[in-house]
Amino acid sequence: MRGIEALIFDVFGTVVDWRSGVAREAERMFMARGVTADPLSFADAWRGEYQPAMERIRSGGRGYVPLDDLHLENLGIVLDRFGISEAFDAPARAELNRAWERLPPWPDSRPGLTRLKAGFIVAPCSNGSFALMTRLAKFGGLPWDVILGADVAQDYKPKPEVYLASAHALRLAPGRVAMVACHNDDLAAARAAGLATAYFPRPDEHGRGGGRIPPAEDWDVVAEDVEDLAARLGR
Amino acid sequence: MRGIEALIFDVFGTVVDWRSGVAREAERMFMARGVTADPLSFADAWRGEYQPAMERIRSGGRGYVPLDDLHLENLGIVLDRFGISEAFDAPARAELNRAWERLPPWPDSRPGLTRLKAGFIVAPCSNGSFALMTRLAKFGGLPWDVILGADVAQDYKPKPEVYLASAHALRLAPGRVAMVACHNDDLAAARAAGLATAYFPRPDEHGRGGGRIPPAEDWDVVAEDVEDLAARLGR
Repeated sequence: MRGIEALIFDVFGTVVDWRSGVAREAERMFMARGVTADPLSFADAWRGEYQPAMERIRSGGRGYVPLDDLHLENLGIVLDRFGISEAFDAPARAELNRAWERLPPWPDSRPGLTRLKAGFIVAPCSNGSFALMTRLAKFGGLPWDVILGADVAQDYKPKPEVYLASAHALRLAPGRVAMVACHNDDLAAARAAGLATAYFPRPDEHGRGGGRIPPAEDWDVVAEDVEDLAARLGR
Repeated sequence: MRGIEALIFDVFGTVVDWRSGVAREAERMFMARGVTADPLSFADAWRGEYQPAMERIRSGGRGYVPLDDLHLENLGIVLDRFGISEAFDAPARAELNRAWERLPPWPDSRPGLTRLKAGFIVAPCSNGSFALMTRLAKFGGLPWDVILGADVAQDYKPKPEVYLASAHALRLAPGRVAMVACHNDDLAAARAAGLATAYFPRPDEHGRGGGRIPPAEDWDVVAEDVEDLAARLGR
């Protein structure tokens, strides 16, 4: 990791706990409406529509649409599937969609990022938009230096353009930037684009009961969490 | 200012003292090379090339080029004019160009932004690039939530696209965003684009000995500095 000037982070899963956060907001709104659906299953189903929606854009079948809009479209699909569409009018859907702006950071994220920020540029390289990442950071006190990712590239990870546009925005060669994620496929794409890579697992990221997934390659750093990453990078 | 969710700031002049910062770096490098040019005059001359260089891009005569590159081109022009080109090889020019990443914040900027951040999204809406604004913020401890401005719009203020793209990036209507600047022309353009406006003067911004320029219109807020702006907005 010599010569690394910037650490760019996957966010959903890596920095924040999307499942608990979405389920908590869903549960609150289900209770207010007398809906009995399971909030955790609902969160998983909503997240399950994430990759297919982006894939249409990555493949060129649709122009770039920010993730906020894809989340709202996907919410309609999942409400239909759960048979609870009628309980959510348009304002209620907009409110539930903002669950993605109120996801709790993992406990190590804020202190770890604060330590790393003293030695590196720290930025999200997420598929979330400027707007979503900004509000999520304010909600959780995440001390980003700048917000990079999908909106900068107008495309979605794991397309190489997203990693390259994020490095380019900082006027850094890809090899001066490390991608940090709990997803092996995200890191494989970043490595193929010339970035350094840092991995740590998160519990049940790929499905409840799935536990912590081990590293799939010899990533440049393998850590336990963001605070451990800071320690391994001397911060 | 009711309903305002984001405050977007001009930076050079408004948040940081470009003249002192550039002159200090120039003086340091002049002394090391036995150059006797006046650093403050040099800073003013360099800044004087700023608008003409952007105007070619705003008018469509040239594609978008980040300000870092325009600053470097303009440095060559000014070194020639001062007759000191031979004292600066390419690495020395690159080093001096980074003066723009090491400009001191005005004393009220950091505490004022920290207070405002508790109630608003705060972001630069500068003609500086993501890279330049990121490094300048790290140098001066400026607590931005997100970096907006020229790089988001791929064009330069005062074109309306820059203000509108910055509001759009936050998924806010222009009327939910206030532009903050010590430049009346910047605010006039922001107002024409539908944004709210907040003004305070800075000393000698339009030339040494020029003092503080009064507001040219009935801006939505007129303050003394960033801390006074925070107080006026209840923070």
